[in-house]
Amino acid sequence: MSPNIQLNEDGSLRHLLSLDGLPARILTQILDTAEGFLSVSEQEVKKVPLLRGKAIFNLFFEPSTRTRTTFEIAAKRLSADVVNLNISASSQSKGETLLDTVANLSAMHADMFVVRHSSAGAAHLIARNVAEHIRVINAGDGRHAHPTQGLLDMFTIRHYKGGFHNLRIAIVGDILHSRVARSQINALTTLGCPELRVVAPKTLLPHEVEGMGVHVYHRLEEGIEDVDVVMMLRLQNERMQGALLPSPQEYFKYWGLTPDKLKLAKPDAIVMHPGPMNRGVEIDSDVADGEQSVILPQVTYGIAVRMAVMSILAGN
Amino acid sequence: MSPNIQLNEDGSLRHLLSLDGLPARILTQILDTAEGFLSVSEQEVKKVPLLRGKAIFNLFFEPSTRTRTTFEIAAKRLSADVVNLNISASSQSKGETLLDTVANLSAMHADMFVVRHSSAGAAHLIARNVAEHIRVINAGDGRHAHPTQGLLDMFTIRHYKGGFHNLRIAIVGDILHSRVARSQINALTTLGCPELRVVAPKTLLPHEVEGMGVHVYHRLEEGIEDVDVVMMLRLQNERMQGALLPSPQEYFKYWGLTPDKLKLAKPDAIVMHPGPMNRGVEIDSDVADGEQSVILPQVTYGIAVRMAVMSILAGN
Amino acid sequence: MSPNIQLNEDGSLRHLLSLDGLPARILTQILDTAEGFLSVSEQEVKKVPLLRGKAIFNLFFEPSTRTRTTFEIAAKRLSADVVNLNISASSQSKGETLLDTVANLSAMHADMFVVRHSSAGAAHLIARNVAEHIRVINAGDGRHAHPTQGLLDMFTIRHYKGGFHNLRIAIVGDILHSRVARSQINALTTLGCPELRVVAPKTLLPHEVEGMGVHVYHRLEEGIEDVDVVMMLRLQNERMQGALLPSPQEYFKYWGLTPDKLKLAKPDAIVMHPGPMNRGVEIDSDVADGEQSVILPQVTYGIAVRMAVMSILAGN
Repeated sequence: MSPNIQLNEDGSLRHLLSLDGLPARILTQILDTAEGFLSVSEQEVKKVPLLRGKAIFNLFFEPSTRTRTTFEIAAKRLSADVVNLNISASSQSKGETLLDTVANLSAMHADMFVVRHSSAGAAHLIARNVAEHIRVINAGDGRHAHPTQGLLDMFTIRHYKGGFHNLRIAIVGDILHSRVARSQINALTTLGCPELRVVAPKTLLPHEVEGMGVHVYHRLEEGIEDVDVVMMLRLQNERMQGALLPSPQEYFKYWGLTPDKLKLAKPDAIVMHPGPMNRGVEIDSDVADGEQSVILPQVTYGIAVRMAVMSILAGN
Repeated sequence: MSPNIQLNEDGSLRHLLSLDGLPARILTQILDTAEGFLSVSEQEVKKVPLLRGKAIFNLFFEPSTRTRTTFEIAAKRLSADVVNLNISASSQSKGETLLDTVANLSAMHADMFVVRHSSAGAAHLIARNVAEHIRVINAGDGRHAHPTQGLLDMFTIRHYKGGFHNLRIAIVGDILHSRVARSQINALTTLGCPELRVVAPKTLLPHEVEGMGVHVYHRLEEGIEDVDVVMMLRLQNERMQGALLPSPQEYFKYWGLTPDKLKLAKPDAIVMHPGPMNRGVEIDSDVADGEQSVILPQVTYGIAVRMAVMSILAGN
Repeated sequence: MSPNIQLNEDGSLRHLLSLDGLPARILTQILDTAEGFLSVSEQEVKKVPLLRGKAIFNLFFEPSTRTRTTFEIAAKRLSADVVNLNISASSQSKGETLLDTVANLSAMHADMFVVRHSSAGAAHLIARNVAEHIRVINAGDGRHAHPTQGLLDMFTIRHYKGGFHNLRIAIVGDILHSRVARSQINALTTLGCPELRVVAPKTLLPHEVEGMGVHVYHRLEEGIEDVDVVMMLRLQNERMQGALLPSPQEYFKYWGLTPDKLKLAKPDAIVMHPGPMNRGVEIDSDVADGEQSVILPQVTYGIAVRMAVMSILAGN
């Protein structure tokens, strides 16, 4: 899939479908804009009128209250009108095609679609077929991409570490089923991170990782040694159908991040996690709630990043 | 059911329950008002403050994301506050009666109810029992009525054909299970359409059609010959329980509108469909997406028509 | 559970979790504030800007369209942004803990949580763990508490009777499964009601009632004799799993409030019910819809009371 569909002819952002192929210039523009929005959520009146009168549709073809909420909050802080559509239960069951559904919503003069779908490429397909004035944001498609999650991770790293140029970063856990790991690798590389590590058991590591210029580790203790950032991934139990599953206890024994193991990283290393956490599986509660954890700030930054993306796409 | 309940003593519109019995004066008022709202959806700020501070309840006793969305969008463009209630899953299951549910919502000082129910007459029943100041809009009740769909069809025809007085119009397909066909026939007759055709297989034609002053055809080719407007209906597979169902392939062979068959209509005939379409069943994709199709504009006009109805009911 | 968590150090209201332990001063403040809001719902523009830009999350861990709607309406009349979360279907099923869910929402800079949960104490647990600036309202937790329902009952009594000091009040029916009876008893006692009666069959009466300073009656006719207020409770059929259920007919015979039985109360006695009613089970329709019934005004006052609570918690 070509990333060009994401950019207008003048090089500005048109849709946000994937971090792949986005130039550093665009990534930095989003992070800078999000920095400006960070304070909005802390004000007495948590609103700016930037998207007043705009219609944003949350098109959720699979349920995700958590993700839907972050986009809904971000849109409302921009004063947009938000309509939530849980589509599995409706038109799709009447045999309407995905593109007819989208064409109908376009005809209602939507301004933006936030799309969540279980199939990779659904947001791309929609972006290729919407009317000229509509913007599309991918809010997760299958195992493929979840770019706003990737962006909020970038924002968090830059916020705590000042930049990317001297960092050693480890991505740890279930890379295979992660929506975000691949995007993170691309974006961190684009933003200049000199040493990127992927730390996972062989059974949870996709083949394609090998060609991505990362260092691969199969032991947690080695993988996080002296790193500045530990990016934990969620063990996607619910996606591992039919696979030879480790028990949570087993997984925790070898792959759970405990305070002891975290000591192997740099003393000022930060610990990140996209949520929802499996406490006692991929992460120990003492780490999750510990001083090096920036897991809750990630959630806060996620709102600012989504406000930034919506605002940029709307032409502000 | 008497239509008088729809009108105030001064002859103005009080509720919108059915197109039956509405005088041409009211139909025209709605279409004229909708014409004025058509541009709102295309503005930068898609809002007018006409219903600011009004509380509109979407009372959906059967799910319909598509219909609910159109009313929600229309209400938000009028700056109303919208509350969505999916009632099947709640009070009704606790044994509360329909009228108690409505009485409770009335006591919350609702201004308007948009009612979707699987039983014919549910919206009428509610309208007869609400407090003086509340307005009711029927958003579809069983096979009976779906007046805003009928109105947007009228709007579409007038928009493309300038009026109704010289038109030959064919309504094609599953008349039996259609919520809208009967209302369309009444409204088009009221608005002065001189030749109205109903084109359907005998098994999908209700008996009452015979006395409605329409011409009945049982072959598509004959029925659409030289018409100005082809109004396709959706094949309501999901409502045909236990009936002798034609296969989609069979239905398409005899009743699907293809480019070849469409040539029998006037060269400038428009093709309408209420959606969601069954492509390859009642309509060929080349027609649905073709130059004569006004199916997506219908969706756009549907928002303007719903804004018009809400605005008129609210006394603007 | 200590009630202190509900109050700030200066004695003002911090969270509304239960009426137990709230001083008369706070109860009266809420009722007075609600009196001021009562007219808002009747205005042309049903909005005041007191909570503009505030983010209120309806966290519903069990579905309750009715309760959710009252809070949503109240919040919108205060111009707040409302986000509805039905949590059973989402993060909880991914194994996230209640407190992690709440911590995540806190990190999105929520201002207020309206919590509905099937487990007693859930709202207390959340209140103890939220960030400093967040306010929590209990919208019903198991059989335990439902304080805004209790408050709207207090409001209704004061509205019709002018105060509490000379009243004889009977609470009638399924005390055992009621979310509100215990709170009502506490609040009415705090507000100075001199004679409080609990009228219920032995099987629907919890042991703890005995020590609460109320008069217990096991026959309806005796219990409501000469009372000023009859507070009916809903027969919670759906909560009586495995119990020896009376048939609705049997229950109505002994415990249903009929016009004849109501004559035993004072001539100007008012009849209350929290809804939804089981007509012909705990209450006869002629009473429910009769002149002494204030059941629908209760719903109206419920909006004003919820606006008052939200407004006070927000610091207005």
